[in-house]
Amino acid sequence: MSAEKSGKFDFERFLRKAFKHPLDWLASRLLKLGITPNHITLFGLVGNIGAAVLIALGYLSWGGLVAGLMAPLDAVDGAMARLKGETSKFGAFLDSVIDRYDELFLFGGLIVYFYNEANFVGILLTFLAATGAVMVSYTRARAEGLGLDAKTGILTRIERSIVLIIGLLFSKPIYSVGIIAVLANVTAIQRICHVWQQTKAD
Amino acid sequence: MSAEKSGKFDFERFLRKAFKHPLDWLASRLLKLGITPNHITLFGLVGNIGAAVLIALGYLSWGGLVAGLMAPLDAVDGAMARLKGETSKFGAFLDSVIDRYDELFLFGGLIVYFYNEANFVGILLTFLAATGAVMVSYTRARAEGLGLDAKTGILTRIERSIVLIIGLLFSKPIYSVGIIAVLANVTAIQRICHVWQQTKAD
Repeated sequence: MSAEKSGKFDFERFLRKAFKHPLDWLASRLLKLGITPNHITLFGLVGNIGAAVLIALGYLSWGGLVAGLMAPLDAVDGAMARLKGETSKFGAFLDSVIDRYDELFLFGGLIVYFYNEANFVGILLTFLAATGAVMVSYTRARAEGLGLDAKTGILTRIERSIVLIIGLLFSKPIYSVGIIAVLANVTAIQRICHVWQQTKAD
Repeated sequence: MSAEKSGKFDFERFLRKAFKHPLDWLASRLLKLGITPNHITLFGLVGNIGAAVLIALGYLSWGGLVAGLMAPLDAVDGAMARLKGETSKFGAFLDSVIDRYDELFLFGGLIVYFYNEANFVGILLTFLAATGAVMVSYTRARAEGLGLDAKTGILTRIERSIVLIIGLLFSKPIYSVGIIAVLANVTAIQRICHVWQQTKAD
């Protein structure tokens, strides 16, 4: 449901364009069955909680597989809302909030996993990755609340999701959380600078 | 810098009113010295990082003391901005974003502390508390970005801060993170419901 980022190549937009036809086909099918975009958002949450439990139990690849199956749902609910022709504010709100919880559950699963492995660095990097991920979203939301924009940055949701899922599938989540810990926080700082640039004229 | 909450007793507003005179006195002194509200915000960040390091090293009461000294600064920068008569959008943005980082650093310190104590429940509760705390702020910011409001809830920033600092001062942070883990996430859910109520008419 997110709009295009300012300037530069937008990976999310590229994927949405490339998969427009199968997405629209699936979205219209689901709508005909009486399913709403919010149902899909909540189904994604349940799936991600399942993935988090698998990760916590040490089944990293299975957790990555389930999370990987849930990830495209974030585009499906958006396509459904578009096809319905009604953009519900609550739908947009719920989608954003559940997106954050989806991600935080996966990181929570990894915290448990790394604890069981007695991997202190893993726990710390996971906490920093979770912090960075949520701050990327927070900076944007807070800026928009003030009538500004903050969509820039190198590691938005979809890139974080891909980095995390690949690390899980290969049972090497430490690399994923390491990359996200650094790049998500860099993105948050990029957004702070972007907001500063916009307001400098005041 | 946060506005009043809808309905009910607002503890933050009460404190701001009760301490208006000393706050304004301090704020005007600082402004005369050429210090800006953003300087105070950043000084608070450095102080909270210091508190987080103390907590990570196991000096819980000292960490709590430093965090407790930093907490009122959040009201000082707001008072300074008010006295200056200019409400800078970037100031409001930076204040909010650094507030989140302040809190996340303290929770990060506790994650390290609980790891060293081999306290799995402590780590998990700290992660849940951090998640809840940031989601309370995220729900509000995202709602405001959509032109809605979400200031309700039982455990906003100042209450979380007090619960955390008391737990640190008494070297019993497990109770603090336990309370915050439950009540902050309840607050986030309260805000989701509040947004839903507002948009139901659509």
